[in-house]
Amino acid sequence: MHSPVSRTTITRVEHGVSAPADDILVTEEPLEIRLGYGPEHDRAEMRLSVTMRSPGHDEELALGFLFTEGLITDPAQVLRVAYCENVKPEERGNVIRAELHPAVDLEPARWQRNFYTTSSCGVCGKSSIESVQVQSQRPIASWGMVDPALITALPDRMREAQTVFTHTGGIHAAALFDRHGKLLLLREDVGRHNAVDKVIGAALASGMVTPVGVEGCILLVSGRAGFELVQKCVVAGIALMAAVGAPSSIAVDLARESGLTLIGFLRGHRFNVYAPGE
Amino acid sequence: MHSPVSRTTITRVEHGVSAPADDILVTEEPLEIRLGYGPEHDRAEMRLSVTMRSPGHDEELALGFLFTEGLITDPAQVLRVAYCENVKPEERGNVIRAELHPAVDLEPARWQRNFYTTSSCGVCGKSSIESVQVQSQRPIASWGMVDPALITALPDRMREAQTVFTHTGGIHAAALFDRHGKLLLLREDVGRHNAVDKVIGAALASGMVTPVGVEGCILLVSGRAGFELVQKCVVAGIALMAAVGAPSSIAVDLARESGLTLIGFLRGHRFNVYAPGE
Repeated sequence: MHSPVSRTTITRVEHGVSAPADDILVTEEPLEIRLGYGPEHDRAEMRLSVTMRSPGHDEELALGFLFTEGLITDPAQVLRVAYCENVKPEERGNVIRAELHPAVDLEPARWQRNFYTTSSCGVCGKSSIESVQVQSQRPIASWGMVDPALITALPDRMREAQTVFTHTGGIHAAALFDRHGKLLLLREDVGRHNAVDKVIGAALASGMVTPVGVEGCILLVSGRAGFELVQKCVVAGIALMAAVGAPSSIAVDLARESGLTLIGFLRGHRFNVYAPGE
Repeated sequence: MHSPVSRTTITRVEHGVSAPADDILVTEEPLEIRLGYGPEHDRAEMRLSVTMRSPGHDEELALGFLFTEGLITDPAQVLRVAYCENVKPEERGNVIRAELHPAVDLEPARWQRNFYTTSSCGVCGKSSIESVQVQSQRPIASWGMVDPALITALPDRMREAQTVFTHTGGIHAAALFDRHGKLLLLREDVGRHNAVDKVIGAALASGMVTPVGVEGCILLVSGRAGFELVQKCVVAGIALMAAVGAPSSIAVDLARESGLTLIGFLRGHRFNVYAPGE
């Protein structure tokens, strides 16, 4: 198990005066995700992807990634997720394997197509949005009226629960709250998409993602709301997504067409509602 | 040509009071990069990647991407970069094609391997760093002593030159400065890696990347310094990289092993030097 932080010595410069200092860095390491079947099945194993991530909660990251990228539609399609043992010593903990249920069809063409969804059905905003809607099988329930006091309380709750950020200042966070603003899950990662995949993977593993989505939940991210993150929320059936930073044009379009309530620039007593859900 | 910003109507909430407001969003759209040869060559065309990016400077993005990902080592290997005309009307401006010099070997196995570099030579921090060093053919000249006044002046110069951020607050920037802190190039994008690829692509196109690297230049990024961004600087032979945010553990390791001077948390009159270059 790799540590989420690493110690080092740096030179700190302030008003032109430099001095050596101890510092703590957020750890970033590659993770390879493999897909395969149990040993009794004579079917090929595939190297699905390599992502740079903060070590920790890697099973959740793999499960969340498979789900939000549309390779699986239900957590029951994955029998187990575990680190590979048959790797070089220095790779231990950086190679993880998801074992699929034998009924799941793992055609190379299928998962390769996934990463080219936009190109197989057209490369434009409209087709990008359509491909997410095809992939998403969970309807999003309208959030209804947004309670400002509930929303503005969320960032402080997330920040208080963050541990790695406090030490390094260099990490993204994603947090899942229930309808009343109670913190359910928090994950931190150098990659914002990984932080979201870890939260959604944890929600999947704990049975919180029902066939009708993560009912009534809020996902808060520490950064901006780009297409990729909104896509993951839509696929998981999350009802409200809030971001500390700005959303992009296509993120707003996707939220509006999917019924996701999208909030941005959530800072202090202010926020913007970009997609009202209905 | 797509606009870099899009207008929309939102609901602004402040201290519990909501009001409709006009807002400007940063545009995010997919870009497909294709690789091929001239019409006189009977060789296959390949769909290399689809990235979500801010429209604009797409030729530079494609060129920079090919270079920083190690698919080409010299801008002369690309004869031209142009939008594809033979696409659906709604895809116009979102599909771009790089035409390679006939002498460049474009084996599918070669470019596929590129995106799995870390997995083909081991999935650990050490092998990730080694793969960048194999890919990088430009030695990095030691920066030597860092002048604090020169460094702390850079963020304001970048911010003043940013146009899209001013309107949307939702975009990353990358800027290239010369050794004396003069701004040479600035690019903005929803993706920080795209902003860096656009700057490096522009530097390549204008002949600034010589066989010995972008001599004596500084690259400043608005966000954090992760592995991917430091990798791009190392491949381009940039001597000093500065980030407004935090670097990760592997970014610092890569900078130290490559001789890149790496500065983080560059804010006001303060910054940290994580890799002294020597």
